[in-house]
Amino acid sequence: MSRNVSAPQIERLIQLLAKLPGLGPRSARRAALHLVQNREKLLEPLATAIRDAADNVVVCAQCGNIDSVDPCSICTDPRRDVSVICVVESVADLWALERASAISSRYHVLGGTLSPLDGIGPDDLNISKLIERAAAEDVTEILLAVNATVDGQTTAHYITDHLEGANVAVSRLAHGVPVGGELDYLDEGTLAAAIKSRRPF
Amino acid sequence: MSRNVSAPQIERLIQLLAKLPGLGPRSARRAALHLVQNREKLLEPLATAIRDAADNVVVCAQCGNIDSVDPCSICTDPRRDVSVICVVESVADLWALERASAISSRYHVLGGTLSPLDGIGPDDLNISKLIERAAAEDVTEILLAVNATVDGQTTAHYITDHLEGANVAVSRLAHGVPVGGELDYLDEGTLAAAIKSRRPF
Repeated sequence: MSRNVSAPQIERLIQLLAKLPGLGPRSARRAALHLVQNREKLLEPLATAIRDAADNVVVCAQCGNIDSVDPCSICTDPRRDVSVICVVESVADLWALERASAISSRYHVLGGTLSPLDGIGPDDLNISKLIERAAAEDVTEILLAVNATVDGQTTAHYITDHLEGANVAVSRLAHGVPVGGELDYLDEGTLAAAIKSRRPF
Repeated sequence: MSRNVSAPQIERLIQLLAKLPGLGPRSARRAALHLVQNREKLLEPLATAIRDAADNVVVCAQCGNIDSVDPCSICTDPRRDVSVICVVESVADLWALERASAISSRYHVLGGTLSPLDGIGPDDLNISKLIERAAAEDVTEILLAVNATVDGQTTAHYITDHLEGANVAVSRLAHGVPVGGELDYLDEGTLAAAIKSRRPF
């Protein structure tokens, strides 16, 4: 018989922490213990930070980004190139592109990919809003920065089909060898794509 | 130039989550995103749980355990064998023994081990309180359930020396082959100890 050893408050904390990606039951227990043993430095600040996030973080009705204002600070940033909308699957992908300072456009977060097997259809994604945005006069290019997976590419094709009415160029990310990557570790598809799209040196 | 992409509330959350054991900057970002995207199911409950823990969790003045009451529920449990005090390095070790239902004694949490190199001396640990508890009339055995490390064993020797005045038996955990363990993967010290302490079959 296993006894419930700690205070119910700690058990509850462990239970919730275990739901975070990257933490299992065991590491959640370690994290909870670390929290309650570092009250001033970690537990109190985290309580405040989570409360703050819960109270202030909103989803941008325009692009689906997450921010403390709606429309988000990217959508309202006057320095952004408004002629391009960079379409991503998730906020995590948006963050990744922003961290790389890869593009200075606005974004559109789909919130996933089409996936018939998982029952995810066009209505479950933020697609109709994208079609609407693409029709705006100043938008000239839709860059589909979706993942190079089957579902990502299916979604890209679906969106391209539905953008035919709008007067925009549709582009996608280049395929090729990742910077710093070793050929020996790359799959055949990537190598073939890199050869096919080879550039003058 | 890397831009600070998300709301300051999220950046703060990422920063604090990254301090948890088992989470680095990258997984903290994923965890924060998962939190703000699961407001009802995860963010709000976690905000409440952390507030609860911060408000209610206390350290037991008797044994050093963490609980919502002081003295803790183990120290006040009438079903516990009060003649044995099981000495552990950390609350995590106490939890591990309780999960295994390994012993039904009371505990004493040292809060670490003696470690001259790290500048941790006897006064930094919860040792004097243990000596005091060991002198109580109903305590007959002190079980030193410290880790089988150099620091753990040094601490065990130190405590044994200082318990000489008290009328108690001092015991330690058995060394041997872990249950389910394979001999091939065990170190020589463990194997030697297992041979030396062999038991009739």
